[in-house]
Amino acid sequence: MSQPSTQIRIIESAIPLFAKKGYEGVSVESLARAAGINKATLYYHYKGKKELFEAVLRYQFSRLLGKLRARIEKESDPRMQLLRFIEVMLERKRVVVELMSREILGGARNIPKDAFALMHDLAGILVEIVRRGRREGMFEEVDPFMILNVLIGATNNYILSAPLREKFLKNSASSELPCPKFDTPTYAKTLHKMVLQTLGAKS
Amino acid sequence: MSQPSTQIRIIESAIPLFAKKGYEGVSVESLARAAGINKATLYYHYKGKKELFEAVLRYQFSRLLGKLRARIEKESDPRMQLLRFIEVMLERKRVVVELMSREILGGARNIPKDAFALMHDLAGILVEIVRRGRREGMFEEVDPFMILNVLIGATNNYILSAPLREKFLKNSASSELPCPKFDTPTYAKTLHKMVLQTLGAKS
Repeated sequence: MSQPSTQIRIIESAIPLFAKKGYEGVSVESLARAAGINKATLYYHYKGKKELFEAVLRYQFSRLLGKLRARIEKESDPRMQLLRFIEVMLERKRVVVELMSREILGGARNIPKDAFALMHDLAGILVEIVRRGRREGMFEEVDPFMILNVLIGATNNYILSAPLREKFLKNSASSELPCPKFDTPTYAKTLHKMVLQTLGAKS
Repeated sequence: MSQPSTQIRIIESAIPLFAKKGYEGVSVESLARAAGINKATLYYHYKGKKELFEAVLRYQFSRLLGKLRARIEKESDPRMQLLRFIEVMLERKRVVVELMSREILGGARNIPKDAFALMHDLAGILVEIVRRGRREGMFEEVDPFMILNVLIGATNNYILSAPLREKFLKNSASSELPCPKFDTPTYAKTLHKMVLQTLGAKS
């Protein structure tokens, strides 16, 4: 097996471990075992847990950025680009969202400098959509970071609280409240409508 | 010390433990130690970890519901009630949001039946505001659960990612992107504006 694919195998098997136990809760031993290699092989590819965790974050962010850019560049209307942005955020796997959320819960102590550059690129994609909409006279001035914070919060919560929603529904059968029923496309459409209205655009 | 205040002392000292380590990561021994009592005293008040965790969730939800109701009933305009709802959600302590978020991250496996009733009450408060706004001809029809999911996501993310935002800002000094600056009142105002516009109301 060539070097790059071993590295990707190590990264992909590390994701569920870091997601479930967080950076502090995972040993190099368990990371090697999950990848089906010994510790020496892991150390051949990564100096240690810190470097592997950094590689995992770079890997996750790069894939997300690549998917966002590919999906957005197919659209020319900034309003449609916004919808694609929301859809890609909602398509993220739970394990990927879980890993980052657990790190943020712990106080974001293990995030390397270069991951911030990738987060900046993520913010930059939304900033660029909003700027284009303003240039074309479609959007009003709204802080794009505020919108990004709302979108990340709303999409993370949708992905992470799926098991909670399921239990909530089971325990709500006898309630007087209207039954919450929302699937991913409806959620994406509503979020899109919310953001467009906040930007003063017609949907 | 009277019995109720011992129980509250046990609950309050359990919150940061459950918040940092999650339900599975906390022992009865460490819960007793944090409360400054022995295990026998803890078992006198709670059958075990499960019952104490349930008491913690009931305590947190009841306090939140009490604060929401008190703040909302001072307003008669549903639009202002919505703002108060958002403000109270943003005033929650990080440790309280962390505890619930960690439980949700783990798949919401330890949430007792009666906590779902309290979650229902929380949803009911927002449902009632939206219904009142519709009766008074101010709001259009929008699924209040969708709005609740967005508001919980956006306020949780705001509270939990504060350390991340701080580091992000430090690493952004040289960037071309506009600098994100948002404080709690501005965030509350923007969220409020977003939700009002989604409901088709004039702010």
